[in-house]
Amino acid sequence: MKLNSQINRVLIVGGTHGNEFTGVYLIKFFQQYPELIRRTNFETVTLLANPQAFSAVRRYINKDLNRCFRRQSLEDSTLANYEDLLAQKIDHMFGQNGENPADLILDLHSTTANMGVTIIVDNDEPFSLQLAAYLSYINPFIKVYNSGNSGRSLNSLRSLAKFSIAIEVGSVPQGVLNADFFLKTQTIIYTILDYLEQYNYHNLPAFPNTLVFYKYLETIDFPRNEHGEIQAMIHPQLQFKDYEPLNPGEPLFLTFAGQTIPYTANLTTYPVFINEAAYYEKGIAMYLTDKQQITI
Amino acid sequence: MKLNSQINRVLIVGGTHGNEFTGVYLIKFFQQYPELIRRTNFETVTLLANPQAFSAVRRYINKDLNRCFRRQSLEDSTLANYEDLLAQKIDHMFGQNGENPADLILDLHSTTANMGVTIIVDNDEPFSLQLAAYLSYINPFIKVYNSGNSGRSLNSLRSLAKFSIAIEVGSVPQGVLNADFFLKTQTIIYTILDYLEQYNYHNLPAFPNTLVFYKYLETIDFPRNEHGEIQAMIHPQLQFKDYEPLNPGEPLFLTFAGQTIPYTANLTTYPVFINEAAYYEKGIAMYLTDKQQITI
Repeated sequence: MKLNSQINRVLIVGGTHGNEFTGVYLIKFFQQYPELIRRTNFETVTLLANPQAFSAVRRYINKDLNRCFRRQSLEDSTLANYEDLLAQKIDHMFGQNGENPADLILDLHSTTANMGVTIIVDNDEPFSLQLAAYLSYINPFIKVYNSGNSGRSLNSLRSLAKFSIAIEVGSVPQGVLNADFFLKTQTIIYTILDYLEQYNYHNLPAFPNTLVFYKYLETIDFPRNEHGEIQAMIHPQLQFKDYEPLNPGEPLFLTFAGQTIPYTANLTTYPVFINEAAYYEKGIAMYLTDKQQITI
Repeated sequence: MKLNSQINRVLIVGGTHGNEFTGVYLIKFFQQYPELIRRTNFETVTLLANPQAFSAVRRYINKDLNRCFRRQSLEDSTLANYEDLLAQKIDHMFGQNGENPADLILDLHSTTANMGVTIIVDNDEPFSLQLAAYLSYINPFIKVYNSGNSGRSLNSLRSLAKFSIAIEVGSVPQGVLNADFFLKTQTIIYTILDYLEQYNYHNLPAFPNTLVFYKYLETIDFPRNEHGEIQAMIHPQLQFKDYEPLNPGEPLFLTFAGQTIPYTANLTTYPVFINEAAYYEKGIAMYLTDKQQITI
């Protein structure tokens, strides 16, 4: 790994989705106690990304902010809805050509899926992978999800920075504060900031150079009728089983009339984001992933 | 118990809150398979109460429909927002002076609180208490909550009928279908319909005449600052502990700065609806109840 890219500014973001309270309240807390995220050799700044959506206790007002950061959209002066404007403003503030460019964006999310504490990386770039490896070495309960070619490396808020990572915790209902996940997210943030401080000092501790992650393959939608109405539920045997192997022939959905619909592909997969509330409208019942062990 | 009040029409309602999917999809299912809720000696009808809110995946559009059924509001011709109009329409359809008066309304709800499978009764009227006693005898995992003087007997949709009961399941996030709770709610509905059929035949089976319920005492709000912003979370030791005893001195909230706020009253209470997402805006962190055993 190249150690020559010093981290000068870290942006911690919460409320990219307004009804994901863990991040929102952590940002409010850090804004009240900035000394807790101050480190000796870089600047840490915070952002409550979508304040209107938070006030409305909704994911977004007009469209999902975390899909608004394609370069083309950021430079499109004809766009005028709330989240497109917000994305352009955030780019002007923290983008690479903005007023205060962020070297690393740490974006805080929660999910109704049983993702536990997940670190999300968006590519195979060594810096993020090494940080993810460190975090899962320090906290063995952490899972690492690689969003791969799902689009997040192109259109997410965190894609503005050179380096990015998201913390995704759940299952937490939308519009609910869960103290356990608040505290776990907070602890991981401190661990990341301490890591970055040592990274800047070229003083990282030794830790294994292997990493297990779950890499995005594709999405599966709910079975729907011709009107787009859902015809089946996540099967009870699959509900809450994020990161567990799903083998060919095992239950995937249960129709309202009681029929089991099995997983019919040929290969074992590892579903994540199973039954995420915000994905119903996106036509996503879960993501399928491939479990990989890599050496960094 | 007086057996002279025959049940002629049962109304099963879902989607009184548009983002509580268990009820919505059960109603859609029953509308597709009406024979499943047909019984020999009464009529069963169904209602998806707030279709606009369901389309928007929100609890309501303008105001909480389940607080719109005070007689005064139902007769106020100056009211014009969506839920007030909807309430008046539902009253015209199923109210006691409506086109098809419902003798019993069964309202289907879900909650982000860990309420398991809860039967809600709204008063001490023997018919509902006896039905609740039967259900908790048949399904020992069922809890019974008596909403007492909380207002539900005056302003809820189900208050339109002579008799009413609600099924409240959780924890389920808003906007999420949980198959396990869907199936459990479905089973209880069938049990209730079978009970009512036997009731009409004056042929109820023998079952214990005792009932344990948890009766509404008061609500507790989150600690807030002068701007109304939440300053503490449900304490991790209390989260998910609905229906368990909370004793004086035990943890209630945890501030963001890590301070525990204990429960300071003198008497043991049994909190329910702990951390229900929809109650943040109502200034309710939980309901406190009194556990009572009664003989019917």
